[in-house]
Amino acid sequence: MKRHLLSAADLARDEASRVLDTAEEMLGIAERPIKKLPTLRGRTVVNLFFEDSTRTRISFEAAAKRLSADVITFSAKGSSVSKGESLKDTALTLQAMGADAVVIRHHSSGAPHRLAGAGWTNGAVINAGDGTHEHPTQALLDAFTMRRHLGDLAGKNVTIVGDVLHSRVARSNALLLHTLGAHVTLVAPPTLLPVGVEHWPVETSYRLDDSLEKADAVMMLRVQRERMNASYFPSAREYSRRYGLDTARMDRLPEHAIVMHPGPMNRGMEITADVADSGRSVIVEQVTNGVAVRMAVLYLLVGGATTEEGPA
Amino acid sequence: MKRHLLSAADLARDEASRVLDTAEEMLGIAERPIKKLPTLRGRTVVNLFFEDSTRTRISFEAAAKRLSADVITFSAKGSSVSKGESLKDTALTLQAMGADAVVIRHHSSGAPHRLAGAGWTNGAVINAGDGTHEHPTQALLDAFTMRRHLGDLAGKNVTIVGDVLHSRVARSNALLLHTLGAHVTLVAPPTLLPVGVEHWPVETSYRLDDSLEKADAVMMLRVQRERMNASYFPSAREYSRRYGLDTARMDRLPEHAIVMHPGPMNRGMEITADVADSGRSVIVEQVTNGVAVRMAVLYLLVGGATTEEGPA
Amino acid sequence: MKRHLLSAADLARDEASRVLDTAEEMLGIAERPIKKLPTLRGRTVVNLFFEDSTRTRISFEAAAKRLSADVITFSAKGSSVSKGESLKDTALTLQAMGADAVVIRHHSSGAPHRLAGAGWTNGAVINAGDGTHEHPTQALLDAFTMRRHLGDLAGKNVTIVGDVLHSRVARSNALLLHTLGAHVTLVAPPTLLPVGVEHWPVETSYRLDDSLEKADAVMMLRVQRERMNASYFPSAREYSRRYGLDTARMDRLPEHAIVMHPGPMNRGMEITADVADSGRSVIVEQVTNGVAVRMAVLYLLVGGATTEEGPA
Repeated sequence: MKRHLLSAADLARDEASRVLDTAEEMLGIAERPIKKLPTLRGRTVVNLFFEDSTRTRISFEAAAKRLSADVITFSAKGSSVSKGESLKDTALTLQAMGADAVVIRHHSSGAPHRLAGAGWTNGAVINAGDGTHEHPTQALLDAFTMRRHLGDLAGKNVTIVGDVLHSRVARSNALLLHTLGAHVTLVAPPTLLPVGVEHWPVETSYRLDDSLEKADAVMMLRVQRERMNASYFPSAREYSRRYGLDTARMDRLPEHAIVMHPGPMNRGMEITADVADSGRSVIVEQVTNGVAVRMAVLYLLVGGATTEEGPA
Repeated sequence: MKRHLLSAADLARDEASRVLDTAEEMLGIAERPIKKLPTLRGRTVVNLFFEDSTRTRISFEAAAKRLSADVITFSAKGSSVSKGESLKDTALTLQAMGADAVVIRHHSSGAPHRLAGAGWTNGAVINAGDGTHEHPTQALLDAFTMRRHLGDLAGKNVTIVGDVLHSRVARSNALLLHTLGAHVTLVAPPTLLPVGVEHWPVETSYRLDDSLEKADAVMMLRVQRERMNASYFPSAREYSRRYGLDTARMDRLPEHAIVMHPGPMNRGMEITADVADSGRSVIVEQVTNGVAVRMAVLYLLVGGATTEEGPA
Repeated sequence: MKRHLLSAADLARDEASRVLDTAEEMLGIAERPIKKLPTLRGRTVVNLFFEDSTRTRISFEAAAKRLSADVITFSAKGSSVSKGESLKDTALTLQAMGADAVVIRHHSSGAPHRLAGAGWTNGAVINAGDGTHEHPTQALLDAFTMRRHLGDLAGKNVTIVGDVLHSRVARSNALLLHTLGAHVTLVAPPTLLPVGVEHWPVETSYRLDDSLEKADAVMMLRVQRERMNASYFPSAREYSRRYGLDTARMDRLPEHAIVMHPGPMNRGMEITADVADSGRSVIVEQVTNGVAVRMAVLYLLVGGATTEEGPA
C-alpha cells in the first residue's frame, strides 16, 4: 500500500481488498473484553480539520484511540491558520512535532495532495474530505458494508442518488466501486451531475425509478440545505418527489438490496424516516464500519506498513 | 443499579448509598502513586454537550480518564446537530461508534430520557444537566460532601437558597436528599419558586433568616446574571440583601454547619467572598468530590455493573 | 528547580542547563520504537488557555502525552470564565480536580504569577505566554536550538529583530540568554522598543545591517498583522525593507550563523520565503525542540522534581 490515502483511485484492487480484510479483523476488536490494540502506542495522529465535521473527526479519533495512538486535534478556527499561516507552514509544524499521521479535512479540493506531495511531512496523509473532490475512507466503509451484505462486489449494481455535483462521497465511491468490479449508476437531475461525468466509469440517469429493479445497493446522498435555494437545484418538494427514497420505491428493490446513506440524513427530504429505520437500511452499520475501516487504514499506513503480518 | 442515571429520583436509598460508598473508595485513588484504575480500559465515554459547561465536562473527563477510559468530546456547536440532525440520529451514530457511556448536557428538559428511553443506545446514559430539570451527579456529589462532614444524612436539615425556579441543582438535591432521609427547606422569593413545588418533598420559606439556626448545611444557588433583569427577579441589591450569605448570617449557623455552592460563584452576589473562603465553606471540596462521584457512577454503570465487587 | 516556571528570569544558570540537558534526553525518546515514557502516568496536565494559540497548546499536549499524562484542555471561550468567574475560582477548581500542572496562556501580563503566588494550586504553574510579558518555554526551546548548533552559549552573539515592544518572546529570550552568558542585541525601530529597555541586559540598535556580521544567531520576531496599521508602526513596505531578513542580508551573516523564528511566519514580511526555507534556517527544528523542552519542563516540575535521577 502507498504511504498516503489521498484518493480512492490510488487503491489497486488488491490493496483495497487488503484494507477491507483488515477492517474485518478490526471489527472483531469491538467484541473483545478490552476493545483495544496496542499497535499504535507512542504514535501521534493529528486531526487537522479546516472544516467542521464532528462525525468524521470522532470516527477517526475513536479508531486511533482503539489502536492506542495519541490523538491531537488541530481545528483551524482561531489557529495560526486563520492568522494567515500557509498550509505549508502548518504541515511543517505538525511534522516537526512528530505527527505519524495527519488526517486532513479541507474545504479546498486537492489540499491533501499538496500536503503529501510537497514532502512537507514524513507522516501518512489521510484525506478525510477535500472540497467537492474525494472522501476515500467513506468509499472504503461503504464498500466494506456492501461486501458484508452482498459478498464479492464484482458484477454488483450500485445506484448512487442525488447531488453528485457537490459530493465527494459519490466521486470516491464511483472510483473505488469500479476498481472492485461493481457497476455504478449515478441518478441525478442534469444540473446536479458534474462536468466531465461522461469520463467517469459509471452510467448516469435522470430517473430514479428506472434503476431500482436491478440495484443491489442504493446509496442516497445528503442534500445540503444551503444549496436548496440555488438556481441549479430543484425545489425541495420536486427533489423529494423525483429523487427521494420512500417505502413505495424501496418495495421495488430486489429483496436482498440494501439502503445506504453517508449521514447525517435529512429525514423526509432525500429519504423518509420509514426507509431510514427499515430492516433494509444499513445506515447505522455504516457508522460502525467507518471506525473499523479507519482503524484498518491507520494500521496499514502507520503501524503495519513495513510488515506483512495482520493484527495480533 | 439501573442502566442509566437520568434523575436523582431513580436512585433508591441503597443504590444512592452504594454510589456514595464507591465514591469514597474512588477518593482514595487520588492518594496513590499512580492515580488511575484500569477498570474502563478499552471503553469509550462520549461527552455529548449541547450546552457549554466547562466545569462539568472536565469533571467527567477527568473521572473517565482516571478509570483509563477513552474520552471523546462531541460538542454540538458546528456539528451535524446544528445542520439539523435529530437527537435520534446523533444517538444512533454514537451507539454505532461504540460509545459505552454517553454523558449528555442539553438545554431542553427530558433530552437524556429520550436518549435512554428510545433504545437508541446500548450504552449508559448519564444526565449531566437537562434544561431546568435535573443534574443528578451534582446532587450525588453534594450528598457525598455532606455525608463526609455531617455523617448519616437521615434527619439532617439542609437549606437550599436562591433561584429554585431555574435550578436543576435544587430539584435533584431535593429528590436525593429526601431519599436519604434529610429535611430540605427551599428558601426563595415567591417568584423564584416553581409551580408545583408544593408536591416536592420539601418545606419552603421566603425568609432566609428563619432557617439559619437549625441548618446543618446551607447550599447557595448560583444567580444567573442574564436573569437578573427579568421582571420576576428582585433587584440585585435586594436579592443580595435578602438572600445573600454574608458573615453575619453565617455566624448564626450552628457551629458544625457547612456552606455549599455548586459553582461558579458570583462573589458578592449570592455569597460574599469572606464566606466563600471561610473555614465553613466546603465549596472547593465539592469540586474534588465531583470527580470521585463521577468516577463511581461511571464505574458502576459501565465497568462494574455486572459484578458485586468493589474497585480493586 | 522551583515549583513553577513563570519567568525566564527565575532560572539560574545551572537550572536552565538542567532543563536543556533533560530536553536532550527527551529528544532521544522520539527515536525509540515506542515514543513514550511512563513518567507522568496518572498525572493530569491542564491546558488553561484564555487566548487561542494552537501551536503552543498542541506542543504542550504532545509533550504531556509522550510522558503518558492525561491532558485536559480548558479553553476559556464559552466557559464559566466568560460568565464572570474569577481567575481565583478557576484555579481553585482545577486544583480541586487534581491538576498536577496548569499550563496557562493569558492575555494579561502577570496572570500566571497570580495563579502561582496566591497558593490557589498545589500543582506546577507553567507560563505559556502572558500578555506582552513572558513566554519562558519559548526562550528555553530557542536556547536549546542554539546550543545544539553553536555549542555553549557563553560569549555568543544573538540578534533579535522586530516588534520587541509587544513580544514576550523577545523579553524571555533576553533574560534567559543573559543568564546563559550570551550577548543579545535587540534591533527595532525606536517606536517598537519598550520603555525601560535600557535596564534590560542587552544592547539595542535601530539598524539591522549593523549587527549582521557578528551574529551567531538571528531571531526574527513575528509581525502581528493587526498592529501594522497602528501609528507607532512603520508601513509594511518600510518595515520589510529595513527589518526584514532576505537573502542579501543572510549572506552577510557568518557562515556558521543560524536563522530563527518562533512562528507562525509572515513569509515576505519579516522574513522571505527563500531565507525561511534555506539551509541556515532552523525554524522547523525549533518546533521539534519545543516538544522536547516542554517534556523536560513537565518532567522536572511534575515527575522528577523530588529526585535527582534523569529519565530512564
